[in-house]
Amino acid sequence: MSEGTESAALAELAKRRGFFFGSSEAYGGVGGFYTYGPQGAALKSNVEEAWRERFAVQEGNLEIEAPTIMPEPVFEASGHLDGFDDMLVECAECGESHRADHLIEDNSDLEDAETLSLEEAAEEIADLGLVCPNCGADLAGQSVESFNLMFETNIGPGSKTPGYLRPETAQGIFVEFPRIKEYARNRLPFGVTQIGRAYRNEISPRKNIVRTREFTQAELEHFIDPERDEADLSAVEDVEVLLYPATEQEKEDGEYIETTIGEAVDEGIIANAWIGYFLGIAQEWYEDVGVDMDRFRFRQHLAGERAHYSADCWDAESEVDGDWIEIAGFSYRSDYDLSKHGEYGDDDFTVFQQYDEPKTVERAVVDPDMATLGPEFGAQAADVADALEALAERDPDAFDADEVTLDIDGEEVTVDTDVANFSVETQTEAGEHITPHVVEPSFGVDRTVYTLLAHAYETDEVDGEARTFLSLSPSVAPTNVGVFPLVSNVEELVDLADDVAEELRAAGFAVVYDDSGSIGRRYRRQDEVGTPFCITIDRDGMEGDGEDTVTIRERDSGQQVRLPVDDLVQTLVGLRAGTTSFDDVLDENEIVEA
Amino acid sequence: MSEGTESAALAELAKRRGFFFGSSEAYGGVGGFYTYGPQGAALKSNVEEAWRERFAVQEGNLEIEAPTIMPEPVFEASGHLDGFDDMLVECAECGESHRADHLIEDNSDLEDAETLSLEEAAEEIADLGLVCPNCGADLAGQSVESFNLMFETNIGPGSKTPGYLRPETAQGIFVEFPRIKEYARNRLPFGVTQIGRAYRNEISPRKNIVRTREFTQAELEHFIDPERDEADLSAVEDVEVLLYPATEQEKEDGEYIETTIGEAVDEGIIANAWIGYFLGIAQEWYEDVGVDMDRFRFRQHLAGERAHYSADCWDAESEVDGDWIEIAGFSYRSDYDLSKHGEYGDDDFTVFQQYDEPKTVERAVVDPDMATLGPEFGAQAADVADALEALAERDPDAFDADEVTLDIDGEEVTVDTDVANFSVETQTEAGEHITPHVVEPSFGVDRTVYTLLAHAYETDEVDGEARTFLSLSPSVAPTNVGVFPLVSNVEELVDLADDVAEELRAAGFAVVYDDSGSIGRRYRRQDEVGTPFCITIDRDGMEGDGEDTVTIRERDSGQQVRLPVDDLVQTLVGLRAGTTSFDDVLDENEIVEA
Repeated sequence: MSEGTESAALAELAKRRGFFFGSSEAYGGVGGFYTYGPQGAALKSNVEEAWRERFAVQEGNLEIEAPTIMPEPVFEASGHLDGFDDMLVECAECGESHRADHLIEDNSDLEDAETLSLEEAAEEIADLGLVCPNCGADLAGQSVESFNLMFETNIGPGSKTPGYLRPETAQGIFVEFPRIKEYARNRLPFGVTQIGRAYRNEISPRKNIVRTREFTQAELEHFIDPERDEADLSAVEDVEVLLYPATEQEKEDGEYIETTIGEAVDEGIIANAWIGYFLGIAQEWYEDVGVDMDRFRFRQHLAGERAHYSADCWDAESEVDGDWIEIAGFSYRSDYDLSKHGEYGDDDFTVFQQYDEPKTVERAVVDPDMATLGPEFGAQAADVADALEALAERDPDAFDADEVTLDIDGEEVTVDTDVANFSVETQTEAGEHITPHVVEPSFGVDRTVYTLLAHAYETDEVDGEARTFLSLSPSVAPTNVGVFPLVSNVEELVDLADDVAEELRAAGFAVVYDDSGSIGRRYRRQDEVGTPFCITIDRDGMEGDGEDTVTIRERDSGQQVRLPVDDLVQTLVGLRAGTTSFDDVLDENEIVEA
Repeated sequence: MSEGTESAALAELAKRRGFFFGSSEAYGGVGGFYTYGPQGAALKSNVEEAWRERFAVQEGNLEIEAPTIMPEPVFEASGHLDGFDDMLVECAECGESHRADHLIEDNSDLEDAETLSLEEAAEEIADLGLVCPNCGADLAGQSVESFNLMFETNIGPGSKTPGYLRPETAQGIFVEFPRIKEYARNRLPFGVTQIGRAYRNEISPRKNIVRTREFTQAELEHFIDPERDEADLSAVEDVEVLLYPATEQEKEDGEYIETTIGEAVDEGIIANAWIGYFLGIAQEWYEDVGVDMDRFRFRQHLAGERAHYSADCWDAESEVDGDWIEIAGFSYRSDYDLSKHGEYGDDDFTVFQQYDEPKTVERAVVDPDMATLGPEFGAQAADVADALEALAERDPDAFDADEVTLDIDGEEVTVDTDVANFSVETQTEAGEHITPHVVEPSFGVDRTVYTLLAHAYETDEVDGEARTFLSLSPSVAPTNVGVFPLVSNVEELVDLADDVAEELRAAGFAVVYDDSGSIGRRYRRQDEVGTPFCITIDRDGMEGDGEDTVTIRERDSGQQVRLPVDDLVQTLVGLRAGTTSFDDVLDENEIVEA
């Protein structure tokens, strides 16, 4: 399809059939907020469940659920209060707000306008002669300002306690690390996951569920001791991936690299083995839930894109309408997050790591003689003692002299070395407190849902009639199976259809029962919402004595087989899990000619 | 346990074992926000899933997912902007805010202080001589003010577009009714559900997860045509309930009524059959998930508690520490919500209901002669025509006179009746547009979780040692089953334990594998988080050739049986679903003496 067409056709289908649509349209709507209808809510919930199964359950990680509103000190520590900004330029004429960097990028060859300073951006706007996309007024001379992307509110009456809607679920994990480490019995490495809403007050949200102001993240914070915990790549080393490293992006004719996780880590293309591990399981997970792997890549962040503390960072990207969309980020965040909270917060964000064998260390210590310091320094005596202790740790050689000079609240004081009772002691240490490093795979759930829909959207022709269908993976499709009695006026046939629907529901399948209209129309209706299999109960199959058969039709091919009712559950379990293909089912049963 | 003890002991366990704890404590915490640890998040998620299964899937309802931030016009329509207030009194001394009605109720015999006017509340505070609970300063003379409980924020830059965190998930359903009715093929009755966060900026939140500022609701909006759709009570008429109707609450010695849903509806104790239907399925659901039904009641709202538009309203209440906690509300909301949005919003909030047979109606109509009105009234001519039309509908008899008098923008004008071309026409109507009524079961998920924990919290003594255990229902317990190799140094035993754990996980069970410490300690650890069954793999069971056996222990009784590995999945499926009791398992297998 040509550019833009895919997303336009998808948006129409999404609204008409209940996947997603702009919220509060009866009140004119407001940009950046979407509501999932019944199909979309089910698809999204299945994607979340699949993520949970892979990244929480199978990995043996801990899942938590934290509030979306957090108090200001959390974001002082995390850096969001100061640094989580976009560039805003307002039109003096119509008052509309725009993202300055997007305006510049859309109208020049610049690709990283967000790295400009505010002044540079304003100059660039003037130089390019940019006008307001809303009213056409000249934007030259308008100042460019920082706009913090967090939604602010007040907790309780008044404005004494500002709170913010979390810009990422991760902070809810970092802040509670001192408690969560106990649940992990203080043993690194361990992972903590959270699936939940996050919020970014985008200046000008784009018109679909890719860049919204409220969205769902699925995040995993994997805490490791960088000295002791090595990633085990055995499960993913042979996974094939398409990589777009920073070095290739910087070349004129840079190319993708087709390789395996094992090789990419060996060759240093992926700088960190933990990142490699998570790229590997993500690659397989995306394939399982139905991302078209011909329209998928891992792109490494350029040095300029990366946060200063991040040693390596890759995005998972999917292609829709010719654009690459970031659908997940994999970042080595070092000890940045826990160090910050350790510094700002009043709790212990470290983990005690036992040495394999106790270590003997020499330590410079003092034991100040307070009977001398007290009379000499009065109220300052305790501070002097503390300063002696600090000096011993910092510069033990200073105690070789007869006197040491200390800085007490800006005042210089001199103390006889004797008074300090300086010595070097030999101590045995069982271990050390370390601040864990964090490896963070962070998934955008809405963007994943959008990618699945866009990649599943297909059209063809059946019996000379145009057909639209969603080739969603059976593992995440909103409805697993449609159950249709061919006619609704034959009692035993309807009874069997009821029984089949009930049995499938009891086995945990999402079932749609439909007895309205022609069978072709019923198939079409399910095709359009991506139901992978439809079962039709017809007269031909009414054998009685538990020997009844029904037909099962596969969505994409339209092929049908007849199979015994007793085989249904087992067959569908295999089809949903991907352990059985429909070709297997075709091989083992009587094919029905359409 | 004595009053208060239960919740204090529970809070300690909840924090230590990862059910829930106050958020952001490293930053001093902020009242009304709680984080669910791994156990709590799993329990909550299981409760939500059980609710979804019963109230969405089994009822055939549509589930949606809407944003938590909504724009101001939504809440102008819903009435929350003007009316969603609590009474605030601030201490002049220390600046602390208090809920005036709670202060009054806590210090007097008044039970419904929230019905007082602001002035009356201030007087009452002065009369009672109330002091600030924080600093002891006199509160007499302080004004009592309205405080809106919605969290406010701004959407996009500046303050042009105020937004609010939804105070209930319901508005996300009502606002999108025009679209959702299409998904329901415009056929009443239908239900729409949503599980999600809601927010209330409580003035002084209580210290546990019962009254928080951010919480999860599970709401069902059931849309009906009150003239045509009758509740079918056949599935619930025999369900036994404990009711506390308004009439009994108003008596000096009012009593609970033990009855069935069928009788209560017949006798008018429950005024509306739809409410009766939902109370019936709620009663059964609460029992399934593990609420102690001896500490559970349905309490009818007193006339003063009810919104003016609500014909009948009942709360489900659970008892904890001697207090009754509202854990769900069942309200007949009439057409209030959809009418309001129909009035304020720019969309159609009605459903077209076809008559069984087309109706013939007489309708007074006019066909004003614009050739006469135009010259006579100029720019007002169209308004005059509209006024004639309105008058014909309102008061057709007025056209019997020679002249009619109209009010045009406050000005009285007189028009010859002839000009109106008045007539009474006979029209055939196929149906009518009606605004559906809403029956709303609204569940507090956090309060349900809290009730389950409080009702499950038990202590006893095993082998002379005190034991704490949570007798959570197997249907919602965070972990379904513990798997323990008795010793960890016998390879075939560990291999079998691994196989058992893997098989159970593949069958969809949440499994904890534990090979650390004594078997008694492992049992205790699982008892404390409510794991209903533990499987121990020991030497006695190593028969080989697929004949291996293991022991399975039930949490509450501590009883154990030995059963074949091959029976495990089926047995546990039955135990979790409640179709098999542990007594059945005891009957059919070899009992192991502890």
